[in-house]
Amino acid sequence: MKNQAFLEKALALIPVIHETEIAAVRCVSPEKQEDGRITIRPSAAGMGHPLQKGDRIVLEFGDHQVGYLTLKLGVKGFHADAPVRLRLHFAENPIELFEDPDDYHGWICSSWIEEEIIHVDVLPGVVSLPRRYAFRYVRIEVLDISSRFSLTVEEAYCRAVSSADDALLLPYGNEDPLYQRLDRIACRTLHNCMQAVFEDGPKRDRRLWLGDLRIQARVNYVTYRKNDLVKECLYLFAALPTKSGQVGGCIFLEPEPEVDDVVMLDYSLFFVSTLLDYYKATGDMETVHDLWPTALSQLYLAEGLLTDQDLIRDSEEMGWCFIDWNLALNKQGAMQGVLLYALRSGMELTRLLNEQDTYMKLEAIWKSCRNAANQYLWNSEEACYTSGDNAQVSVATQVWMVLGGAIEGKKAADLLRRVTNRPDALKMVSPYMVHNYVDAMICAGEEETAIAYMCRYWGGMADQGVDTFWELYNPENPQESPYGGTIVNSYCHAWSCGPAYFLRRYRP
Amino acid sequence: MKNQAFLEKALALIPVIHETEIAAVRCVSPEKQEDGRITIRPSAAGMGHPLQKGDRIVLEFGDHQVGYLTLKLGVKGFHADAPVRLRLHFAENPIELFEDPDDYHGWICSSWIEEEIIHVDVLPGVVSLPRRYAFRYVRIEVLDISSRFSLTVEEAYCRAVSSADDALLLPYGNEDPLYQRLDRIACRTLHNCMQAVFEDGPKRDRRLWLGDLRIQARVNYVTYRKNDLVKECLYLFAALPTKSGQVGGCIFLEPEPEVDDVVMLDYSLFFVSTLLDYYKATGDMETVHDLWPTALSQLYLAEGLLTDQDLIRDSEEMGWCFIDWNLALNKQGAMQGVLLYALRSGMELTRLLNEQDTYMKLEAIWKSCRNAANQYLWNSEEACYTSGDNAQVSVATQVWMVLGGAIEGKKAADLLRRVTNRPDALKMVSPYMVHNYVDAMICAGEEETAIAYMCRYWGGMADQGVDTFWELYNPENPQESPYGGTIVNSYCHAWSCGPAYFLRRYRP
Repeated sequence: MKNQAFLEKALALIPVIHETEIAAVRCVSPEKQEDGRITIRPSAAGMGHPLQKGDRIVLEFGDHQVGYLTLKLGVKGFHADAPVRLRLHFAENPIELFEDPDDYHGWICSSWIEEEIIHVDVLPGVVSLPRRYAFRYVRIEVLDISSRFSLTVEEAYCRAVSSADDALLLPYGNEDPLYQRLDRIACRTLHNCMQAVFEDGPKRDRRLWLGDLRIQARVNYVTYRKNDLVKECLYLFAALPTKSGQVGGCIFLEPEPEVDDVVMLDYSLFFVSTLLDYYKATGDMETVHDLWPTALSQLYLAEGLLTDQDLIRDSEEMGWCFIDWNLALNKQGAMQGVLLYALRSGMELTRLLNEQDTYMKLEAIWKSCRNAANQYLWNSEEACYTSGDNAQVSVATQVWMVLGGAIEGKKAADLLRRVTNRPDALKMVSPYMVHNYVDAMICAGEEETAIAYMCRYWGGMADQGVDTFWELYNPENPQESPYGGTIVNSYCHAWSCGPAYFLRRYRP
Repeated sequence: MKNQAFLEKALALIPVIHETEIAAVRCVSPEKQEDGRITIRPSAAGMGHPLQKGDRIVLEFGDHQVGYLTLKLGVKGFHADAPVRLRLHFAENPIELFEDPDDYHGWICSSWIEEEIIHVDVLPGVVSLPRRYAFRYVRIEVLDISSRFSLTVEEAYCRAVSSADDALLLPYGNEDPLYQRLDRIACRTLHNCMQAVFEDGPKRDRRLWLGDLRIQARVNYVTYRKNDLVKECLYLFAALPTKSGQVGGCIFLEPEPEVDDVVMLDYSLFFVSTLLDYYKATGDMETVHDLWPTALSQLYLAEGLLTDQDLIRDSEEMGWCFIDWNLALNKQGAMQGVLLYALRSGMELTRLLNEQDTYMKLEAIWKSCRNAANQYLWNSEEACYTSGDNAQVSVATQVWMVLGGAIEGKKAADLLRRVTNRPDALKMVSPYMVHNYVDAMICAGEEETAIAYMCRYWGGMADQGVDTFWELYNPENPQESPYGGTIVNSYCHAWSCGPAYFLRRYRP
């Protein structure tokens, strides 16, 4: 099923990974306050302090890093006469250091916890850990050591990696301090997710997902402009379709490039809009020509799923589409909006390609689907779109109807405002969904409100003292983890890097 | 303090390490019986069986190995979407698999437990562990794995290492099945301790100790004849004396060759006898010339420790000499015997070197010390040698008086027999001491009894189903560990490889 020519094009675009050596800045003593907040103070015992059994130190690296740790270890006392056994716990967020990995029993595999237990055989010596971690803090705990000597950590540094080059980052001119701050954090988030592909998060998953790619690519065009990385990712998805020809939700690069079995309808359709965005940023018509058949077939495959009423068929199957990280959400309505959105992207691409017949076809589908949405999903009494047999009212459904063009202008703005203020409307859960909400408000002409909303939401995250934006953020409970433990939360997550896109585009 | 010329000679002699690829033979199910014995049966689930969270398999490698493990891992189910976290427990003796490392609280550092917790990021894939282990069994336990796939162990092999070459092993001609068996186990023990130096044990310590070297060298001369390895070790000890000029108890090779702070008087004196043994095996007079000053100074340093009565001054200091692994043992008497033994070796070396004056000096010291032993330590009532202020009676004291020549012939034989049969005499603890006991019996002309004793003791160990002889063996309690857990016992220990020496020399 692989398209070998596309795959070769993709692999030839795998970027050079830049490496930067970042030394540990200091040793710190994170402390948990009564209100749950963590304070970070320099520790009394700094680097070089002799460590014995049970002792711990926490190294701090000044910013969120993605990379490989090297420790230069020394000895005080007699010659080391036995290995030293160490536990290392890497943390993006200091709160992770207050959880015991053994107490984690959530549904995400505990193997994502950035903990290692290692033996050091030769001391003094230099230990370079072979695995990559995402972290600002590293706690080193001496699990056991011979009584004849103490261990010292003389130096520690991270070989930080990214395919983004900070020297090429476009400057952001707006001097508003909050905008500057949000932009800086968003760029760092994107930077640390830019590796051999656009990863969703450098701590967990570390994979190319189409839903994340769509957002990352847009931020990339106004920041690092590493457009070939987007091109590589588009070719990867096109090279590795699922059996039906549908573009997969995500791609594995190792041990060999392969598509995952997880297929989500919204993600597949984003292939179309991501291709269009790529063309707009690059003018690279050759790639559009190559990848258009893949894009078009996503639209036709989705068309095949329509009911007689031209509505996307609802499904009970978990993960049939993504929309938001919310199990209670009925996704039919939002999915109808995503289809409209993708169809409009497809229509724009057919214009570029001078494919008039296809344009007419897609436009016809778009119109039928829009009409179906407005006929069957619009609830006049509630004055909003609903979703599924139970006519669920959610913010997500309205957002995608707006982005898909089912409703426009002031009506769209009023709709968004109305449903946002409805206490019974199902709320958004992830920054990913909030990103699309901000986008929809802008689309409805409410730029001021949109930017203000974005500043409140991402500003709240920034106020947690973050270096990078998180996978998940609930303003009402910033420490929340849907996984049963923050130690598997991803605190540098691509789908949250949108502020740099919105700010650079609308607040230059 | 380093003698650079000697060190360079030593380092130039560091041998090539031979590597042999040994595949896992099968998967087994070790079971503990009510009487504590372990039975090993092939397991129902073999290689390639799909493993999920909590599952374990035990690989068996057919013989005791020292080396590096490689696993070829596969996947059943969906694409691996998270790392796999594995715990590997290497065991020389299957009993180790029935102990929980977390329950070990003995005085030897738990970092010697051959357990690793690793993450495997790329699956299917090949994992090669960087550390060396000593084992016949490896238990692999899946600590966590994503629910989307199962792990399979497709292949497992050990890159077994030794500087001994089995192709060069001298055949042992005696067809007695027990002799053959003991010789084979002893040779395997030596083989697996022969690495960059003669190690005491490949699992724990992994270091060059003089007390072990003395025995290993003797076995080596009649088996692998890798005489340059002995030469290397002798030069290492001579190159790296302690501040006083005394030869250290052991040498570290990494990170740089260095002598340990542990200095034991008997071990230092064995430098003399080990040099003599080396000359007898090789005729290498150049080495004797180089190292004689070091050897001689050991004798003079020991002479400096004599009391006015020409007795070795007793000491309360732990570890002032080794003799046996027994804290209750008073070591003065045995130490007097060791000095006599070393003086005789020195006298023989002066003859080779034509150093008549020195010969006379050493002979004079030997005679005074022998007379002192027979005057002050011989207890006529008890009809044996005693040790220390409390006139302790132990087997060890008699052994070394015999080996040192304080008593000879039938009198010596009678003495050994008498004290062995005394229930109140302090018994031997380690195979190391038993080795010297056997040697002493042969020295006293009791070859038959000595070989029979050796066959009983080492035969008992062999009956435990061993591949290699152990560091410690108490026939009355084979599973005993003086460390508080068999998981830190060394089940392949150089000082127990003596049977090959005795058998090849006295039962050819």
